[in-house]
Amino acid sequence: MSKILVGIVMGSDSDLEVMKKAGQILDKFEIGYKMDIISAHRTPDIAHEYAVNAEGSGLEVIIAGAGGAAHLAGVVASLTPLPVIGVPMHTQSLGGIDSLLSIAQMPSGVPVATMAIGKAGAKNAAILAAQILAVRFPDIRERVSAYKKEIAGEVMEKNKKLQHERCSAKVS
Amino acid sequence: MSKILVGIVMGSDSDLEVMKKAGQILDKFEIGYKMDIISAHRTPDIAHEYAVNAEGSGLEVIIAGAGGAAHLAGVVASLTPLPVIGVPMHTQSLGGIDSLLSIAQMPSGVPVATMAIGKAGAKNAAILAAQILAVRFPDIRERVSAYKKEIAGEVMEKNKKLQHERCSAKVS
Amino acid sequence: MSKILVGIVMGSDSDLEVMKKAGQILDKFEIGYKMDIISAHRTPDIAHEYAVNAEGSGLEVIIAGAGGAAHLAGVVASLTPLPVIGVPMHTQSLGGIDSLLSIAQMPSGVPVATMAIGKAGAKNAAILAAQILAVRFPDIRERVSAYKKEIAGEVMEKNKKLQHERCSAKVS
Amino acid sequence: MSKILVGIVMGSDSDLEVMKKAGQILDKFEIGYKMDIISAHRTPDIAHEYAVNAEGSGLEVIIAGAGGAAHLAGVVASLTPLPVIGVPMHTQSLGGIDSLLSIAQMPSGVPVATMAIGKAGAKNAAILAAQILAVRFPDIRERVSAYKKEIAGEVMEKNKKLQHERCSAKVS
Amino acid sequence: MSKILVGIVMGSDSDLEVMKKAGQILDKFEIGYKMDIISAHRTPDIAHEYAVNAEGSGLEVIIAGAGGAAHLAGVVASLTPLPVIGVPMHTQSLGGIDSLLSIAQMPSGVPVATMAIGKAGAKNAAILAAQILAVRFPDIRERVSAYKKEIAGEVMEKNKKLQHERCSAKVS
Amino acid sequence: MSKILVGIVMGSDSDLEVMKKAGQILDKFEIGYKMDIISAHRTPDIAHEYAVNAEGSGLEVIIAGAGGAAHLAGVVASLTPLPVIGVPMHTQSLGGIDSLLSIAQMPSGVPVATMAIGKAGAKNAAILAAQILAVRFPDIRERVSAYKKEIAGEVMEKNKKLQHERCSAKVS
Amino acid sequence: MSKILVGIVMGSDSDLEVMKKAGQILDKFEIGYKMDIISAHRTPDIAHEYAVNAEGSGLEVIIAGAGGAAHLAGVVASLTPLPVIGVPMHTQSLGGIDSLLSIAQMPSGVPVATMAIGKAGAKNAAILAAQILAVRFPDIRERVSAYKKEIAGEVMEKNKKLQHERCSAKVS
Amino acid sequence: MSKILVGIVMGSDSDLEVMKKAGQILDKFEIGYKMDIISAHRTPDIAHEYAVNAEGSGLEVIIAGAGGAAHLAGVVASLTPLPVIGVPMHTQSLGGIDSLLSIAQMPSGVPVATMAIGKAGAKNAAILAAQILAVRFPDIRERVSAYKKEIAGEVMEKNKKLQHERCSAKVS
Repeated sequence: MSKILVGIVMGSDSDLEVMKKAGQILDKFEIGYKMDIISAHRTPDIAHEYAVNAEGSGLEVIIAGAGGAAHLAGVVASLTPLPVIGVPMHTQSLGGIDSLLSIAQMPSGVPVATMAIGKAGAKNAAILAAQILAVRFPDIRERVSAYKKEIAGEVMEKNKKLQHERCSAKVS
Repeated sequence: MSKILVGIVMGSDSDLEVMKKAGQILDKFEIGYKMDIISAHRTPDIAHEYAVNAEGSGLEVIIAGAGGAAHLAGVVASLTPLPVIGVPMHTQSLGGIDSLLSIAQMPSGVPVATMAIGKAGAKNAAILAAQILAVRFPDIRERVSAYKKEIAGEVMEKNKKLQHERCSAKVS
Repeated sequence: MSKILVGIVMGSDSDLEVMKKAGQILDKFEIGYKMDIISAHRTPDIAHEYAVNAEGSGLEVIIAGAGGAAHLAGVVASLTPLPVIGVPMHTQSLGGIDSLLSIAQMPSGVPVATMAIGKAGAKNAAILAAQILAVRFPDIRERVSAYKKEIAGEVMEKNKKLQHERCSAKVS
Repeated sequence: MSKILVGIVMGSDSDLEVMKKAGQILDKFEIGYKMDIISAHRTPDIAHEYAVNAEGSGLEVIIAGAGGAAHLAGVVASLTPLPVIGVPMHTQSLGGIDSLLSIAQMPSGVPVATMAIGKAGAKNAAILAAQILAVRFPDIRERVSAYKKEIAGEVMEKNKKLQHERCSAKVS
Repeated sequence: MSKILVGIVMGSDSDLEVMKKAGQILDKFEIGYKMDIISAHRTPDIAHEYAVNAEGSGLEVIIAGAGGAAHLAGVVASLTPLPVIGVPMHTQSLGGIDSLLSIAQMPSGVPVATMAIGKAGAKNAAILAAQILAVRFPDIRERVSAYKKEIAGEVMEKNKKLQHERCSAKVS
Repeated sequence: MSKILVGIVMGSDSDLEVMKKAGQILDKFEIGYKMDIISAHRTPDIAHEYAVNAEGSGLEVIIAGAGGAAHLAGVVASLTPLPVIGVPMHTQSLGGIDSLLSIAQMPSGVPVATMAIGKAGAKNAAILAAQILAVRFPDIRERVSAYKKEIAGEVMEKNKKLQHERCSAKVS
Repeated sequence: MSKILVGIVMGSDSDLEVMKKAGQILDKFEIGYKMDIISAHRTPDIAHEYAVNAEGSGLEVIIAGAGGAAHLAGVVASLTPLPVIGVPMHTQSLGGIDSLLSIAQMPSGVPVATMAIGKAGAKNAAILAAQILAVRFPDIRERVSAYKKEIAGEVMEKNKKLQHERCSAKVS
Repeated sequence: MSKILVGIVMGSDSDLEVMKKAGQILDKFEIGYKMDIISAHRTPDIAHEYAVNAEGSGLEVIIAGAGGAAHLAGVVASLTPLPVIGVPMHTQSLGGIDSLLSIAQMPSGVPVATMAIGKAGAKNAAILAAQILAVRFPDIRERVSAYKKEIAGEVMEKNKKLQHERCSAKVS
């Protein structure tokens, strides 16, 4: 079993469906992680404790997903020297532009590495976590490079399929 | 000297020019207040302490001004049962829509009473604080009512002046 | 039966589904309230009368929900010294950013305590109303504090469940 | 002296510079008007009285300019059967998109004829007022038609000047 | 059969569902109208001809509905001295903010009376048309005033029903 | 003197400063062009005539700059089979997002090749016009390719200068 | 079989449904094209190769569809002197405003002819491609002119049908 | 002299003023870096080469600043397994929301760690780079922790100064 290097936190259990995508990518990269539901606003003390203890507990990167006035990533980033990645959730009324701005527009001094809104952002958070860990673990960089080739291959495969379909359509 | 009932906090000294407007209104209403620069992101422990101690120290209302990924009001609101009023700061790039959404779009469970962006919002935060205190202190409600009459009078005065100018212009 | 301290008004019966959430929270806090459909634009005289009489009829806080060019909260706030809380409704075309700006961007002199768009905003309006009343009624503050613990507990429970599921998944 | 057919109202004396543009166009069309500073939020009773009495006092069209949570036009429109034209003011933080949405997004039943943000909107409000009055007064329609030709002529004159400059530049 | 005073045009047959709401209101006010599908971009010559002939054919007001880069109202307004009312259509991608800005932000000289996005806007366009015609036809103003009372009555009825339900709920 | 292949039109003389940038690029490419101020809204008949005659007069591409409810490019595109390029002007209140949406969101059937807001857009309109003409005139394609090398060279030169400055700064 | 003059590329197979609309229009205009799935971000080398070889392989115009941080059109445009048309995809969270800005706001020197978001944009990309090719191939311009008449006819037909329905409704 | 671990690239020399802020923070952290002006659109081959060679040349993190249709960070991220941090530049027309969306809304597979718009973003990019490098270099983590204390101290100092001023003001 791999050491837990990444902490995934999310503000609500309604974010789980999206944030699981991050977990799946980390599984693929064989990077150990833990996953918690911690609300910056409803469980502030737990969020505080989580962030303060993150470094000591061996985490190297934190991924935080939240929506609306999405403060979780910023709250965690304010309390740890670890790199923090923020995933803005889609919101029903404003589509997630509120989440995106609440995460990206951090003041000077406390960065949050902001991802795209929703599932693409959750996946990319895990890939970025891998890229960060790869600064120290060369085998993770190899997996990242292999993954880039894999997704390139998928696009190429889809293009091949498209050409085949169009070719068949013309012949018939 | 009046008892300190309102705490004004702001995330940066660059917010001071705007937040002083809140202080001036409270002075006018003879409501005691204190004013602090506390950053949710750069001094998270002080923000935490401030919010946790607010009720015990005799505060009844908190006004928090912040800009960009403006988490200060939400962070304070998460840690106190007191009513928290948020003032979104104007921002150079996005005009303050980032601040407004970061403050207004709070999740269910932790309200922040959001005001308009900038100086009008800071003034209104103080008036709302007075309206809240007026639930308990009848003399403050009288001052609020008097203030409403006063600003009505100012508008009427300006209209009278406009009529006079237009009248003079026609005659001459 | 508890004294009616909060007035909930909404601009249209289509807002009822959302605004009922405010009522449920007030019920939970055992705070008496009344609920009315009053349109700032279609029944302006009733809105006027409602606002002018609010203080005299014993109300201490008003919650107003409206959508689009959402003037109801502002109209009421212009006519009463009571604190007014505005709930922006989700709108089909613009998601509610129109409602939010129409409520939040009030001019200096007439604050409206603006909440998040939609149901979260309606719930939070009731919690804020309770926080405001708690300035005068200590037992309400206790209920607010208890409520904050309750929602923290719910988040913690969900996290516990998540850990359990993930643990089970690994074992099996 | 021409009969007063148009009422121009604005929410603040800071709107005067912009709203004067409407007056200048009405002067040009020889349409009588009056101009008042009346705040929907700070002088709600005067706004109410103004709107209720508008029809009886002989006004046929009302032009209302306001900014931010711009309720003035809607408040007036709710209380009169007369056509109401709204001019959204430019705002420092959001450029006037708040004013525009607060005026344009009126609910079904109470229209406000919304113009462009700022001075172009103020001028156009007066032209629209003239077009509305022209339904009854044929000579005003003639002036509107003449005005359209006049502004066409101005554009043509500017184009002629441009051609001349470019021609001269090539020759020299 | 009443004389045709209002021309309703729309850019596409997909706008018909929305624009019919304008027709229904005009029917209610017993105001004669005609309704045409004319695209500013796909049938520019017909749009040109329509606008140029509008005044001569006895029309007094034109209502134009269009979506996206919504030029129809502006194109018509550029070619007629009649008052033109624009109805921005909801759009799938941007919700209609594109339509709204394309109609509202007209340059100085050529006003379009912009309504809310979608069905509320279409209804209001017809009410505004009635208010405009009422400048000349006193009986239409009476119908407008009656209509305002009618919609006020509907809101009051809904409020009565709400009170009854809540009362019954408490008793049972 | 080169044959006139490109028509540059703009809605107002206030757009001239920006649209001249397009002319300068065409001069550089030695492509003949004419430049006119024609308002879709104030001189609709001239705009109509211009567009209808464009093809017959030998033009191959039209560049149209306009701001706000920017209909000029769309109006021209509706009346000519030639490719039309639209340049959205910066606007004081909304920064040009209104112009951009009014030009880009054209309905199916009538494309406008939309550029960036402001001067970059005006320059790029001219480059695109050259790229379009290059489909027929091989020497223009050579000039386009040369231009691409030239601007690459400028960036490289700036980078070289930066390296030199940083190097000097370290040595001294 | 016609020579391949247009290259359609798209960033993902999920864009195929939309981009096929461009192909259908080119089929109608009897313009040869090829269609490829190439991701600027996942297959950057293929995108690079595609763009560099486009001119040599006989393409005259490239249509690129992409969503979100939509870089494909810009990447291609940076590497070819051919005209590049960009089609912004609708996105789930932000409706496609992200795609539109990522494509339209190109820096000076590298234009992308930006179309409307979604299917209308894809269709228009193909029409614009035809308009561009028509600069060289007179028969394509004839087809473009015929197409404009065809779509005008469709609108006129729909209007005729509407008149017939309304007429029948009145009679019955 | 410290080894070069961070590459700062920017799309234009006009970004230099902002991106220098990143350099100053790296200097403070004693992290070696190089700084280049490379345009994704004007020097695509150099951007390609830079990104492909980044890993081999010993870089561990890349910071890319760009504005408008800001593709530089995405282009680089598509070609390297290294973590890439994007800094959205403020833009004159849209304030930088275009830059922010063009950088943040990356598709699944190719993350860019997006920062705030402008100088705060540039500073934070450097801090995040330090946090990333700290995964491998423990002394950098110590410097990050020390820096967090330093900026906390600055806020506390400013608050102390504010208290002193207010105290003096009351006494005098």
